[in-house]
Amino acid sequence: MEKMNFVIVGYGGMGGYHARELIGENDYVQTYGVYDIKEERREQARKDGFQTYDTLNDVLADDDVEAILIATPNNSHHEIAIKSLRAGKHVVCEKPVTMSVAELDDILAVAETTQRQFMVHQNRRWDNDFLIVREWYQQQMLGEVFQIESRVHGANGIPGDWRHLKEYGGGMLLDWGVHLLDQLLFLVDQPIKRVYSDLSYVLGDEVDDGFTAWLTFGNGVKAHVEVGTSNFVKLPRWYVKGYSGTGQINDWDLSGKIIVPNETTERVAPTPIKAGQGLTKTMAPPSEEMTKELPILEVEADFPEFYRNFYEVVHQNATPVVKNDEVRQVLVLIDAIFESAMTGKIIEMN
Amino acid sequence: MEKMNFVIVGYGGMGGYHARELIGENDYVQTYGVYDIKEERREQARKDGFQTYDTLNDVLADDDVEAILIATPNNSHHEIAIKSLRAGKHVVCEKPVTMSVAELDDILAVAETTQRQFMVHQNRRWDNDFLIVREWYQQQMLGEVFQIESRVHGANGIPGDWRHLKEYGGGMLLDWGVHLLDQLLFLVDQPIKRVYSDLSYVLGDEVDDGFTAWLTFGNGVKAHVEVGTSNFVKLPRWYVKGYSGTGQINDWDLSGKIIVPNETTERVAPTPIKAGQGLTKTMAPPSEEMTKELPILEVEADFPEFYRNFYEVVHQNATPVVKNDEVRQVLVLIDAIFESAMTGKIIEMN
Repeated sequence: MEKMNFVIVGYGGMGGYHARELIGENDYVQTYGVYDIKEERREQARKDGFQTYDTLNDVLADDDVEAILIATPNNSHHEIAIKSLRAGKHVVCEKPVTMSVAELDDILAVAETTQRQFMVHQNRRWDNDFLIVREWYQQQMLGEVFQIESRVHGANGIPGDWRHLKEYGGGMLLDWGVHLLDQLLFLVDQPIKRVYSDLSYVLGDEVDDGFTAWLTFGNGVKAHVEVGTSNFVKLPRWYVKGYSGTGQINDWDLSGKIIVPNETTERVAPTPIKAGQGLTKTMAPPSEEMTKELPILEVEADFPEFYRNFYEVVHQNATPVVKNDEVRQVLVLIDAIFESAMTGKIIEMN
Repeated sequence: MEKMNFVIVGYGGMGGYHARELIGENDYVQTYGVYDIKEERREQARKDGFQTYDTLNDVLADDDVEAILIATPNNSHHEIAIKSLRAGKHVVCEKPVTMSVAELDDILAVAETTQRQFMVHQNRRWDNDFLIVREWYQQQMLGEVFQIESRVHGANGIPGDWRHLKEYGGGMLLDWGVHLLDQLLFLVDQPIKRVYSDLSYVLGDEVDDGFTAWLTFGNGVKAHVEVGTSNFVKLPRWYVKGYSGTGQINDWDLSGKIIVPNETTERVAPTPIKAGQGLTKTMAPPSEEMTKELPILEVEADFPEFYRNFYEVVHQNATPVVKNDEVRQVLVLIDAIFESAMTGKIIEMN
């Protein structure tokens, strides 16, 4: 099998990561070359052992290049994707795919006309923490799940340069929000009915440095999605409630716990505890016999890894794991979250 | 000094707790007797060493009784309070004070006419965890606080009997919600501008078994208030964000942490971490030099304890720590939370 030749366009943090690891260590694709608009980044790429191109046109004119990985600032995805597709290249694009639904629709129309593949690198569908939560949800390990809380908390503010600027598609809703929302929609696989949200501007930037969104899915599942960049203490990455149990994953280290009722024992009432200045039975720990802890087990994705899938989509007509329609739904949802935060209103989705 | 003679009306869990500890061990008040509508509870009171009355009228006819503590189901507070005030007794009432704002207004009108004192036992203003958060807020230990999350999570469902029933004023918004909301309003001391909420009915009862409310105060502070009774894993009791730090208190044991920026060092960029299938600088831990942990220190209330204050209100014209107007504001807020949850709309408060 011949590996698919990728050129990486945009050799920043993510571009380098694709070159070295994601594409670099893959059996199906390989880094054929690098292009960056800045000479110092091209020089870095050459130091890292990659051939570089001086212009995007040079990349697109090279018949040995089969596919482009776009890892540039968000506002340039639209133009580069369309040019690349028109030049007959397949395209993988970093997230967030575009600045608007309309921009994505432009790209998809060109992909349709040119019969080239276009796929968005929603890599966090393969995150182990997410796969574990997906297993809980699908196998009903906590009973039927009715509430999902997905948070990422940092205390470093917004790193880098262009992520602070609206013009480049900066802000945390587009940067991290797109991951958490993509995971949730992929997990619950139901339309969103209702959105309420709040963006934060703690840093005083022109773009949001975090947000909270409260979502209601068509099947009644509720989700709390939160990104924060001024959280010096982190709340757990995942907190999931089912009718028979609660699961928590603290962090990417996969620590956490699952507690479920112990169905085999008779009901033993909890002992009231002194809590602050009052007694409480309601908030007392359940009697020890009444619950049990289950281990958090790592699970394998039941879908192929990203670049293998992309290769098979291009060469073997496989179904893409990341479908463009799903990516589009996330953009529609992001628009609704922006709208809710700006208007202070609940957005009812059709 | 002669202690004030209290009769405890309603000898259930809370009534017994008042008799034994709150009134029982106090220097300003004493348990003079007990009345309960059920003979078996009166018998229990006698076994516990208290004289009992056969009817409420007998209590109210006894000139040696100066004050009544009402610890009956919520729907009976209104009638017992008014009768007691009209009989010339001072009244302490368990929370939630009444089933509606109108009922409270009735009581306050009678207290005014009879010139008797009426005070609600919002005892959780003296909880140590709350006093610590109040210190953070007032002393700006986290910088200016802009977000407060207050949660109580249990896994025992709703305990007892009448708390499951609407008629008796059951449900968790009235039971625990009234504590958390009273604390918040006492803490922030600003009008609420906006309310959005969601009640949970996990147990299938006719009353809510939990709720989440998102509140915006007049000064812009945002609060997330949550009660859950099917949370097998607990999220922290308090999570507080300021412009220069985050504080977390896990539980009534006062464990938790405060992390603040270390202003004395130069800015050291965080090292990106591999998090799931991606690299992140945003969510990497801050460089070690950039933050420091502060100890959680217990603090004393800067206001007198409840029964001492009540004694001094009655006998020395002191200012009540729990003002009836504050209690009324909490009831207005509870109405708005019910309305938001029922209509699915945001409630703008005047």
